[in-house]
Parts: sequence; C-alpha cells; structure tokens
Amino acid sequence: MSGQRSSHPGAACPIARASSVVGDRWILLIMRNATLGMTRFDAFRSELGIADNILSNRLGRLLDAGLLTRVPYRDESGRGRHEYRLTAAGADLLPVLNALAAWGEAHTSPAEPAEPMRVLHSVCGHTLDACRFCENCGREAVRGEIAWLRPWRSPEPVALADAALEPAR
Amino acid sequence: MSGQRSSHPGAACPIARASSVVGDRWILLIMRNATLGMTRFDAFRSELGIADNILSNRLGRLLDAGLLTRVPYRDESGRGRHEYRLTAAGADLLPVLNALAAWGEAHTSPAEPAEPMRVLHSVCGHTLDACRFCENCGREAVRGEIAWLRPWRSPEPVALADAALEPAR
Repeated sequence: MSGQRSSHPGAACPIARASSVVGDRWILLIMRNATLGMTRFDAFRSELGIADNILSNRLGRLLDAGLLTRVPYRDESGRGRHEYRLTAAGADLLPVLNALAAWGEAHTSPAEPAEPMRVLHSVCGHTLDACRFCENCGREAVRGEIAWLRPWRSPEPVALADAALEPAR
Repeated sequence: MSGQRSSHPGAACPIARASSVVGDRWILLIMRNATLGMTRFDAFRSELGIADNILSNRLGRLLDAGLLTRVPYRDESGRGRHEYRLTAAGADLLPVLNALAAWGEAHTSPAEPAEPMRVLHSVCGHTLDACRFCENCGREAVRGEIAWLRPWRSPEPVALADAALEPAR
C-alpha cells in the first residue's frame, strides 16, 4: 500500500530509512551513552531512568539494526554476561548526535542554567567547527581525536568510544 | 526523580532536549517534507500515509515546540484554512536531516535499487561536502543555495523551503 512507502525500512529515501531505525527518543539517548563508552544494561537503566522492558526492546532493535553488538564478559563473581558495544554503523551515528546537540543548544533551554556541550579536537583542546574541523589547527578530526565536553557532568572532556571489532559475517 | 533527568525537555544535555522534540519517526518525516516545501495537512497525510489523528498530534507537537508555525490561507473555494510553515528553528533542523540522510545511505539499503540522495550547491550544481562546503567551488553554502536531489522522485533538485517570517513575540 502506497501509504507505507515513506515509512518503510526499505524506502527509497535514506532519511526515511534512517528515521525508521533511530527516530526514537530512547534509541537516541542509548546511542548517546554508547558513544560516551557506556556498555552495560544496568548502567543504561540507571543513567536513563528507563524501564527494563523498554530498555530491552530498544537494545534489541539496535542489535537487529546492527548499531550495537553483544560482547560476552565475566562479571565480578565470574558469571558470564553480555555488554553492548558500538559497531562501525553505530559509531557512524556521531554526526547525527552532534547535529542534535547543536540544534538543542540553539533552540531549546535547560531547566537550570548549564554551560553548553562542546565537540572538541582532543589533540589540541579546541572546538571543532561543524563538529569536524578544528577551529585552532584547521585539521579535520578523526574519530579517535574527538571528545565531548559536557560541563554539567564533568570539567573533563570524554573521549568517544571506539567501535568494537566485529567478526566477519 | 533522578530517573527522568536525561529525558526531560529541560535536561542539561542538549542531545536529550533535542531528542525529546524530534526523536520520533513521524516528526522527522514531517520535517523532511516541510524542508522540501510541503505545507498542507492533506499533502502530509497523502505523502506519508499517516493517520489523521497521528498527523494532528505530531503537527501540534511541532507547533508547540516552535519548529512549525500556522499561517492562514484561503483555499480554492475561498474557505479560510491554515498551512504549516517552517520556522527558523525548523529550518535549522537541516543538518540533522542531512546527517540522517548520510547515515541512511551508508548503513541501510532501499528495497529497490535507488540512486542515492545528494545535497547540492544549487549555484553550481555540485555536491556539498559535509553537506556544507561545495566540492567544486569550495564555498560554504547558505540555505538559499542548498538543494536536495532525490533521484527516485525527480531528476531535478528541489530547493529547500525558506523559513516563514514570524511575527515578533
């Protein structure tokens, strides 16, 4: 039916396809935190204040869509568990998150005054113009050189998580 | 309650604030079409195949959040109606939409083969690098010079809609 054309995961429009994967508030917040290096179910739950069933649903959607991958680890008691790591596709969501941050700074306000978030070139500590080009050294930053400064949480910038190495499929 | 901290519209994090406004598939599709110049309820409904009540809800949220504004017009029969026009805040969502398009092209596939969407510098017809800088003339494109080429719909690029002039508040 033609009505489904623009919202289908296989739509011709890449904005429609991307929106069918990440057009969800919880998905964007999970991907923000995964980008900051968060990997564990309990950490997402406590940071986001999200109900278990909603978190499980969204992590499942992100696994199915290939933005996160499950990696086994052993917890303190030696029990086998899984953590959720960014894939290359998940790491590539960074420009979307940076664009959302810029829009949010420009067009919305925090309830309490807060210093703005900044996207930094960690090599020299300066802001990245268009979230890519260092305003100081002019170089285009590669992922390992990009940090987020979120002053309301910490005065120290946080280096972005690397994508997990994925097994060949 | 601390659990609501990251998802609140007034959160310190601008990504959380932006996600609370645009973290929704229908909202992103409506804003895509508004960016292409669509303004009327019936046009959104038929293009997106969206139910009336869902479309009304999302347009209401976009009006409340200040991304769209209602502008009166008279239809063919002289009846007073309203159309929905981008505000400056709505027009500023372009980098988010462009980043979604780039991610969608890179990491999802259309059901039927389709030529990729391109963000063009309409002045010279070349692709914009990082959706901003012309790969041909090197200039940074301003909004009035940016067009979207969506080859599965038309061989002609579509100039992006301007923001409506808004009354001073």
